[in-house]
Amino acid sequence: MIKAGIIGATGYAGGELVRLLAGHKEAEIKWYGSRSYIDKKYAEVYQNMFRIVEDRCLDDNMEALSREVDVIFTATPQGLCASLVNEEILSRTKVVDLSADFRIQDVNIYEHWYGIKHPSPQFIPEAVYGLCEINRERVKKARLVANPGCYPTCTTLSIYPLLKEGLIDPGTIIVDAKSGTSGAGRGAKVDNLYCEVNENIKAYGVAVHRHTPEIEEQLGYAAGEQVLINFTPHLVPMNRGILITAYASLKKEVSYEEVRRAYDKYYASEKFVRVLDQDVCPQTKWVEGSNYVDVNFKIDKRTGRIIMMGAMDNLVKGAAGQAVQNMNLMFGLKESQGLELVPMFP
Amino acid sequence: MIKAGIIGATGYAGGELVRLLAGHKEAEIKWYGSRSYIDKKYAEVYQNMFRIVEDRCLDDNMEALSREVDVIFTATPQGLCASLVNEEILSRTKVVDLSADFRIQDVNIYEHWYGIKHPSPQFIPEAVYGLCEINRERVKKARLVANPGCYPTCTTLSIYPLLKEGLIDPGTIIVDAKSGTSGAGRGAKVDNLYCEVNENIKAYGVAVHRHTPEIEEQLGYAAGEQVLINFTPHLVPMNRGILITAYASLKKEVSYEEVRRAYDKYYASEKFVRVLDQDVCPQTKWVEGSNYVDVNFKIDKRTGRIIMMGAMDNLVKGAAGQAVQNMNLMFGLKESQGLELVPMFP
Amino acid sequence: MIKAGIIGATGYAGGELVRLLAGHKEAEIKWYGSRSYIDKKYAEVYQNMFRIVEDRCLDDNMEALSREVDVIFTATPQGLCASLVNEEILSRTKVVDLSADFRIQDVNIYEHWYGIKHPSPQFIPEAVYGLCEINRERVKKARLVANPGCYPTCTTLSIYPLLKEGLIDPGTIIVDAKSGTSGAGRGAKVDNLYCEVNENIKAYGVAVHRHTPEIEEQLGYAAGEQVLINFTPHLVPMNRGILITAYASLKKEVSYEEVRRAYDKYYASEKFVRVLDQDVCPQTKWVEGSNYVDVNFKIDKRTGRIIMMGAMDNLVKGAAGQAVQNMNLMFGLKESQGLELVPMFP
Amino acid sequence: MIKAGIIGATGYAGGELVRLLAGHKEAEIKWYGSRSYIDKKYAEVYQNMFRIVEDRCLDDNMEALSREVDVIFTATPQGLCASLVNEEILSRTKVVDLSADFRIQDVNIYEHWYGIKHPSPQFIPEAVYGLCEINRERVKKARLVANPGCYPTCTTLSIYPLLKEGLIDPGTIIVDAKSGTSGAGRGAKVDNLYCEVNENIKAYGVAVHRHTPEIEEQLGYAAGEQVLINFTPHLVPMNRGILITAYASLKKEVSYEEVRRAYDKYYASEKFVRVLDQDVCPQTKWVEGSNYVDVNFKIDKRTGRIIMMGAMDNLVKGAAGQAVQNMNLMFGLKESQGLELVPMFP
Repeated sequence: MIKAGIIGATGYAGGELVRLLAGHKEAEIKWYGSRSYIDKKYAEVYQNMFRIVEDRCLDDNMEALSREVDVIFTATPQGLCASLVNEEILSRTKVVDLSADFRIQDVNIYEHWYGIKHPSPQFIPEAVYGLCEINRERVKKARLVANPGCYPTCTTLSIYPLLKEGLIDPGTIIVDAKSGTSGAGRGAKVDNLYCEVNENIKAYGVAVHRHTPEIEEQLGYAAGEQVLINFTPHLVPMNRGILITAYASLKKEVSYEEVRRAYDKYYASEKFVRVLDQDVCPQTKWVEGSNYVDVNFKIDKRTGRIIMMGAMDNLVKGAAGQAVQNMNLMFGLKESQGLELVPMFP
Repeated sequence: MIKAGIIGATGYAGGELVRLLAGHKEAEIKWYGSRSYIDKKYAEVYQNMFRIVEDRCLDDNMEALSREVDVIFTATPQGLCASLVNEEILSRTKVVDLSADFRIQDVNIYEHWYGIKHPSPQFIPEAVYGLCEINRERVKKARLVANPGCYPTCTTLSIYPLLKEGLIDPGTIIVDAKSGTSGAGRGAKVDNLYCEVNENIKAYGVAVHRHTPEIEEQLGYAAGEQVLINFTPHLVPMNRGILITAYASLKKEVSYEEVRRAYDKYYASEKFVRVLDQDVCPQTKWVEGSNYVDVNFKIDKRTGRIIMMGAMDNLVKGAAGQAVQNMNLMFGLKESQGLELVPMFP
Repeated sequence: MIKAGIIGATGYAGGELVRLLAGHKEAEIKWYGSRSYIDKKYAEVYQNMFRIVEDRCLDDNMEALSREVDVIFTATPQGLCASLVNEEILSRTKVVDLSADFRIQDVNIYEHWYGIKHPSPQFIPEAVYGLCEINRERVKKARLVANPGCYPTCTTLSIYPLLKEGLIDPGTIIVDAKSGTSGAGRGAKVDNLYCEVNENIKAYGVAVHRHTPEIEEQLGYAAGEQVLINFTPHLVPMNRGILITAYASLKKEVSYEEVRRAYDKYYASEKFVRVLDQDVCPQTKWVEGSNYVDVNFKIDKRTGRIIMMGAMDNLVKGAAGQAVQNMNLMFGLKESQGLELVPMFP
Repeated sequence: MIKAGIIGATGYAGGELVRLLAGHKEAEIKWYGSRSYIDKKYAEVYQNMFRIVEDRCLDDNMEALSREVDVIFTATPQGLCASLVNEEILSRTKVVDLSADFRIQDVNIYEHWYGIKHPSPQFIPEAVYGLCEINRERVKKARLVANPGCYPTCTTLSIYPLLKEGLIDPGTIIVDAKSGTSGAGRGAKVDNLYCEVNENIKAYGVAVHRHTPEIEEQLGYAAGEQVLINFTPHLVPMNRGILITAYASLKKEVSYEEVRRAYDKYYASEKFVRVLDQDVCPQTKWVEGSNYVDVNFKIDKRTGRIIMMGAMDNLVKGAAGQAVQNMNLMFGLKESQGLELVPMFP
């Protein structure tokens, strides 16, 4: 039985980790870290866990924690994990960091976009970007996994095969993303009040959203060259779900079958990436509560562009689900252990 | 492995049965009956099941079906199950009927409230009302289970202990219920369009809703006398969830502890009924996707009344989840098999 | 042109006052008071007012304000208006207080339920409870109007005729209320975040909600005797709207026509109270954005009870609209001036 | 007083026309045409109009109607207006067609994208595309106005100045649009049920949506050359509102001020187009219920692209509001008559 500790257990991603690990046969949570709710019963913070979790919240002492658990999940704001982690901890326990601290290999880019000094850049090189479908083998051997961001996961998986196969022009990629509100976290801000979000849609972080360089780095690996994109996230009045609609110019005229083959080449044997049937557009509701990413595409011969679409649950495949998937890989478990969740509809 | 067939597999309750049985270790679906979608791939009707269910929809031939499966679920409109079932079928296979056909023991009351002639009243006496927490032993031996209605499940479980213990006056019960829109089914009606339901709340079926006599019958068993209630359902702009708020006059002054003991007497060892801590009001979101019913109460000394509250997922404990719970009991499986679902929040 | 000042202009009720007064032909806002946003452009707080309101927010100096305007609206937390108002101010300007400070005639009851010391009880006797349809003549002569609470407005108007006509037993009244989330205000609290409210319904303040004594006082005037009720509010995932469902025992058997006559007696010539046709249940969406209250009732002969229903927009008739209606009466304007708003559907 | 008739008065756009004309000082509705509800009271179809509209629905006899009214609005499916209109009718009465029948000058393009034979192509040349801000003078003289589509209105107004001023490359335009569900109409379809739309977002009509050629034609006029775009609409869980996010490559490096000047050149004196302050992103909630379009832009120097955004209420500026604005122009009224609607928030 793998012992897990969570730092930041009372945010929405932390809460989802608790939900998923509660149903995981080979892992158990030993530490519910939450600076804001120390000593409070976890089930009083999230009443859905009433009679399921009896523990109380603890502080976020990673040092102490590393002596008690096999794996630590950090579901905390930027900078925290990087400031707590050290060689001693990593020598004792594995770390899956759900923040952005170790996602970007170039520390200057990290510091530029996040506006903070990286507290422990020495661990960046060894950190593995935990997009399981792409970096599976490296994840298996990692001590420190940088769990990908929600938008980057959905975007990269939707575009990856076409860049790998050289079908699209990397300089033309535009990503228009839409996210449910749980992505904004559980902080008490006016902007996230029910009445401000409901019956409303808006773009935010236009041209400056921090997930941009993370996406660009991953797409760059696929393209084999530097990639710059436009990325525009939107806030949608729903709890969960991310949909990305991406546009790129095709390098040459291609048929549906050619593009389909590209997707199948990379995803045919992937459990969690579902390439939908022709002309079926992904919908966030079809993956809600599950670890699936549904992807599809449409060729527009009139403009010579291709529209790529991807939908997933931002809290599952976009955060906690992928973190568990990474844990499974790191510990040699079945990759889908605890993640055999059937999407809930409606 | 128990073989199950579903008649009405493409309604919302049918879809939820598919979701739950997909995660059930000891049952598998052999027949996806759907008159409206014969020969269509089930996963094309519910795309959340893409790559999970490969079967196509079949017709609703209960005769043929009974030769292939161990248990038939009928998630169909009133009157259909009663018109298809017969002694031969019941001798071969068990039936869990999610419609109201066998819920009410007095056929005259059924025919009065539902406005149809009951096609097979001879099976009413043997049908067991499948409210597992109350009729567990009888369910275990049943061939034919009448799966309770959503409102009756939530209402009965919320009030039952106080009637059994004689704490409230049965003549004063008022039930004000609120339901998510999946309770209205998947029929294409203007009233259920997004724009008609969203940003809106209304009562419906005031003083004439068909669940009234079903609730009255069950409460009557608890009270040991005939019970008449007021029952007012409301349509709430959300997909899932039922909340009932019930009012009754206390027979005498009681303390919190006395009432609490009454609830604990019946539910302390029940997995799926959670009596919340003092002053915590049930919320539908805390049980979403799970088989739990959360109940609680508040004494109002000023008026001598007690307010009883219950929340559950109408598609799980209010329909498909309870149906699976009944199946588990009927086949001697662990009662919670396939129902160990952690509520999803947010 | 009447000059108006608003203290608390950046809460939801304050914002609605601004919306309504922007369309009022005979009033103009001279003072946008908002302690939290002093010096900020009002249209930057509420971007819907961009290019409609050019003013900046000011502080909440009622003394200074009373020298510049004819009427002051206080849309502020309990206790503030009562602490600012004095004889000098009232001699110069009229005040419509949207808080509860002057709604309850018995100061002990106010202090008990609100848990604060009333700062200026000497003004309570002269304050007029501004439920226009009932206290119209007194409002016309008032200096200080206590604008009714949202729940009390909807509840009182729904029940009033039956108490006045002695058709129902005052001791049996139960009010089950449902409100949109704007009623909870614009404060940044976790409980009001989108993800906590959406797809959820709950009761709150059960048996202790502060609107209870306000309703009881008003119903008491109608009944001519003391009235105690059960009042249970619920939070509904929608921005606007209140629906109340009230229950009471009929004193004798009555026909639909008799009850209908009672409603018509009081409301036939009221513009803003619409008694719906037989069997049509009020829906909050049908009054959204308008000053209407839609009411109706249903007799349940089985139980000898009557179910009374009322729907209105909590921010309009339940707050800002009624405040403007009161202002119109106080200044001898046409009562519906600025309130000829057609409900928006969908 | 202008007499107006509506054909298709019981769809959502028709209903909005009724709402707006109810508040219009110089127009009155004489004919509520609705094939589906003939003889039914209009206020029974839309209960928000109870006690506001007393008329009953009539059939859609344009011939008879043209003898009774000054202006006919057709809020009907494609092909109907074109099949009813004739020279005699147009000689007697003005027509504002809210369908697509007369929006596209090239009848072949219309027939290709709509898949129907145009019944009266002879009227296409004289029809004026009623985008008031751009075609104001021609609208004033028109007998037949083609009221623009919702997406085309929002898109064209958001992009127009930059094409006119030659700042962007017309060959690079990508429009990612998001719409509330009222845009899908009031037809009873499973896809538009509450439970299918709520908590969900999806693209639809990818690369084949019928508004594409309409947008291309209008942008082509602005660019002075043929324009091909990618246009992807998405269905958002909200009643009202359209947000478009458009992308294009800048022809040269430009400053914020230069682009701002381009917008101001065309919109500084336009009442209904609000160019927001720098870095403020349009939100649909800020224009809800009003005739405003809020636009803004963001330059991304990294990619050399500009992101243009526009938000409006699809039923007002995107349908009924613009139709009334066109009527006002056609009859020499003040352009904003009946449209001085303050956006409702929240």
